[in-house]
Amino acid sequence: MTAREKVTEREFIRRIRERLPVAGGDLVMGIGDDCAVLRQPGGRLLVLTTDTLVEGVHFDCGWHPAELLGRKSVAVNISDVAAMGAVSRFALLSLAVPAAVPSRWLESFMAGFLDCLGQHGVLLIGGDTVASGHEVMVSVTVGGEAAHGEVLYRSGARAGDEVWVSGELGEAAAGLELCRQGLAAKNPGWQQLIRAHLDPEPETDLGPGLAASGRVHAMMDLSDGLATDLAHLCAASGVGAELAAEALPLSAPLRDAARHLGADPLAWALKGGEDYRLLFTAPPDARPALAAIAARCGRPLACVGRIVAATGVILCTGRARQDISYQGYDHFA
Amino acid sequence: MTAREKVTEREFIRRIRERLPVAGGDLVMGIGDDCAVLRQPGGRLLVLTTDTLVEGVHFDCGWHPAELLGRKSVAVNISDVAAMGAVSRFALLSLAVPAAVPSRWLESFMAGFLDCLGQHGVLLIGGDTVASGHEVMVSVTVGGEAAHGEVLYRSGARAGDEVWVSGELGEAAAGLELCRQGLAAKNPGWQQLIRAHLDPEPETDLGPGLAASGRVHAMMDLSDGLATDLAHLCAASGVGAELAAEALPLSAPLRDAARHLGADPLAWALKGGEDYRLLFTAPPDARPALAAIAARCGRPLACVGRIVAATGVILCTGRARQDISYQGYDHFA
Repeated sequence: MTAREKVTEREFIRRIRERLPVAGGDLVMGIGDDCAVLRQPGGRLLVLTTDTLVEGVHFDCGWHPAELLGRKSVAVNISDVAAMGAVSRFALLSLAVPAAVPSRWLESFMAGFLDCLGQHGVLLIGGDTVASGHEVMVSVTVGGEAAHGEVLYRSGARAGDEVWVSGELGEAAAGLELCRQGLAAKNPGWQQLIRAHLDPEPETDLGPGLAASGRVHAMMDLSDGLATDLAHLCAASGVGAELAAEALPLSAPLRDAARHLGADPLAWALKGGEDYRLLFTAPPDARPALAAIAARCGRPLACVGRIVAATGVILCTGRARQDISYQGYDHFA
Repeated sequence: MTAREKVTEREFIRRIRERLPVAGGDLVMGIGDDCAVLRQPGGRLLVLTTDTLVEGVHFDCGWHPAELLGRKSVAVNISDVAAMGAVSRFALLSLAVPAAVPSRWLESFMAGFLDCLGQHGVLLIGGDTVASGHEVMVSVTVGGEAAHGEVLYRSGARAGDEVWVSGELGEAAAGLELCRQGLAAKNPGWQQLIRAHLDPEPETDLGPGLAASGRVHAMMDLSDGLATDLAHLCAASGVGAELAAEALPLSAPLRDAARHLGADPLAWALKGGEDYRLLFTAPPDARPALAAIAARCGRPLACVGRIVAATGVILCTGRARQDISYQGYDHFA
């Protein structure tokens, strides 16, 4: 093989989409959103998503307990389903494991995996177990369902919408950095950051709640960082966005860890991946409805900017404006 | 991590199944067959399967052209769907690729992948592309559908049934060995063995045809070798099987390659994996119906033994009897 011509993940996916036949028939949404959406015979919608975690890329067995990794490999998928406004129903697991991994590790992984499925009422219905040479690799496919008209796509944002996120940003990126530097146990106040990285909680109540409200225009989950994910949402909707730097929800532990590490908390919030919070847009008059849903689900919401008739994602800091589109995590970079 | 307590793939899957809640509701078949089967709202059945191919375990980039690997990663999954008697409709792809892999390889892989999907009328509806450290890993999930009552399971075999396979056995194992020894180009007569390993053809016509006939009792595809796969089918059905060694269909090229390599062609046929032929059982009076379907699909069928009221898979060679249950490929061995 020759030296690699560099291609971004986004470019690679664009090239694949170009070659796909136009969707139709029972296919409502193919590649390009958090889940694919298929119309079922009875009229309800089937949503499907797949996500892969690779040792050394997405997790490090040195600090990621097998049981929490099992939980996380479920959580990242049902987060995608929740981000469509749907409810997860079943899962398939493909597990590639090097011979050096002890059975005890496998048992713990499966305990966490099945525990997280059970917690969310999801059934393991199939899978594949194979050997690998070097890395543990976990690939999970989750299917869910939703009523017709209650699925939210990335493509619905309109100029004038407000941009919202659920929960605080950058926590998982900060937690990862603390684990990398061996500081996970140093400060009890940082435990929510560590947990955000090791054991993220998907928004399984909030997602379907927002979708059922009829007031949300576009939604997705935050997996590659706000700068990249909002750019995807804007591109799908044919709009742009302006983010207010001072509105980004940064927790006290996040700011504290950033100070300790000499890191920029804003960079974690904008470019750090794996938040698994929801990103969505809604018109300003939806605020009371959103507040009611947030209260019911016990989740905090923060308005972080607005959708504009333009392109790109602009970060506004005082009067300074900076295009930060796609500056989050790129799996191929 | 400590030294590994050895666990077989079968034992690992058994332990997982023990911990799963009993299936019910819309779940017709969970773990334990070629595909999971779910009842859809309108009454039709949705089947789902997932299969993973790992570089260095399932394929070697040194001799496996990227385009054929793309085709194969589709074929192994739609083979599972065909083995239920169902028709494949959609696919999701998880692709983990080390940074050293050139874009050209990715392009070729996707060309083959999409080509094979198109050939079988299957739509790519979603996926995930991630980086990996060392190995290319391809995980594909395929969904298909079937009419109620036209799905075949492993569990339906009855004492007195005849055991059938489609096509010749051991070809892929022989092809793999030829590739390993750098003999792929040596003899034009061996090309069907090489092709069986690099570019297997799933039984997409025969599988649904056999299921629709109403004459077949149990069916699965051959992926881990007849000795293991028939043992699975027997265990699921609560029966045993006797195989007639002289009835196993071994092609002339297979015998020739075995002679050349000093290998045992019977071992390839019984223990070699990745045949992707169908294994099924039917009562003796189904022979005329089976012959008609085979002729219509242009596929050869061979009766290789019979189902008995016992346990285990017995290979009968003249008067000698040998238990060969589960002596095929074990991913964890």
